[in-house]
Amino acid sequence: MDENDPWFDDKITEVESLDANLQKLHNAMKSLVTSRRELSLLTGLVAKSAAMLSTCEEHTGLSRALSNLADVEEKIELLRSEQANSDFFILAEFIKDYLGLFGAIKCIFHERVKAFQNWQYAQMQLSKRRENRGRFELANRADKLDQAQQEVDEWQGKVQRCQQQFDDISAEIKREMERFELTRVKDFKVNIIKYIEDQMAHQQQIVSYWEAFAPFAREIV
Amino acid sequence: MDENDPWFDDKITEVESLDANLQKLHNAMKSLVTSRRELSLLTGLVAKSAAMLSTCEEHTGLSRALSNLADVEEKIELLRSEQANSDFFILAEFIKDYLGLFGAIKCIFHERVKAFQNWQYAQMQLSKRRENRGRFELANRADKLDQAQQEVDEWQGKVQRCQQQFDDISAEIKREMERFELTRVKDFKVNIIKYIEDQMAHQQQIVSYWEAFAPFAREIV
Repeated sequence: MDENDPWFDDKITEVESLDANLQKLHNAMKSLVTSRRELSLLTGLVAKSAAMLSTCEEHTGLSRALSNLADVEEKIELLRSEQANSDFFILAEFIKDYLGLFGAIKCIFHERVKAFQNWQYAQMQLSKRRENRGRFELANRADKLDQAQQEVDEWQGKVQRCQQQFDDISAEIKREMERFELTRVKDFKVNIIKYIEDQMAHQQQIVSYWEAFAPFAREIV
Repeated sequence: MDENDPWFDDKITEVESLDANLQKLHNAMKSLVTSRRELSLLTGLVAKSAAMLSTCEEHTGLSRALSNLADVEEKIELLRSEQANSDFFILAEFIKDYLGLFGAIKCIFHERVKAFQNWQYAQMQLSKRRENRGRFELANRADKLDQAQQEVDEWQGKVQRCQQQFDDISAEIKREMERFELTRVKDFKVNIIKYIEDQMAHQQQIVSYWEAFAPFAREIV
């Protein structure tokens, strides 16, 4: 379509670029979640090996430290799995919802193009009907003139209705987009903050696990 | 061999069990290192995607937050790679060195078994030579007796030397094992503590990255 409103050109470019980059971020997050889950399983394997090693270690202090190391690694295994869940539910799924919304937006932009095409088609038909009427006037065919005038009126009405529909959908899109932008920014803010808080809580938890374990390591004599 | 010193039976069982479990821990650590490296790469991918998303984000606050998120993820990428190095150099390589030492210990135990077998072989030969001498004595073969006595003396000397060798290697193993146990416990202590400190430093670093990023997320309006 020949766009006469630059707002739409800009918005379509913006939405498509956000959508494409959000898609990439979503894929990266999905791989991160898978990798974090794998790391969790492998941490569990380290925990099990350390526990087995501790059972056959004769030196009491070292055996106790290894057994506590196994406990810490086991707790970290659980925490990593929670981290994977927070990556998944707070960011990946959130981004996925927005990819769905961007998909819907692209559909609505497409509906507007279709409304524009309907309007143009009606205008073309109206021009044709006017030409017909002109030809009948020149030929003084009063018998055909009435019918031709009726068709001109009919298509004039259609053109008006199509233009109205196009204007309505354009205005509706602008309104909805404005609302969507506000919600989107708020939503991203809330989720990013929730994600940071989750990450910090997890990392601090890991620090406290190691801190609690440190005395057992220092006690080895 | 028929073991007459229970210390060796116990020690061999202990060493073999430690060796087998340390091998498992080593394999688990190697997988952990690989997985941590992968997680680092994927975190870098998330950083890149967030950076690209920030460039096409029109909302200034959100764009800045995304760009800062990308910076944080990039720093975490580096840190995870350092963590993988600390897993590798502090624990995995340390364990691998000890696997090498346990291999050497198993070799020495095997040398002792060979010394025992040599001693037993010498004893068997000595018995045979004594039987020969007895037979010659009964048959009054004075012409062969000298030669037979010489052989008995020769093997008696060999038996003594072999027994001495076996006793020496047994004592040497006990001395060396005692020294090794002390070094081993100290080494494990040092490395476990270094590992904890490294882990804590990394986790605290991640917490501080998120803390520094938090204001950018809260600033989104």
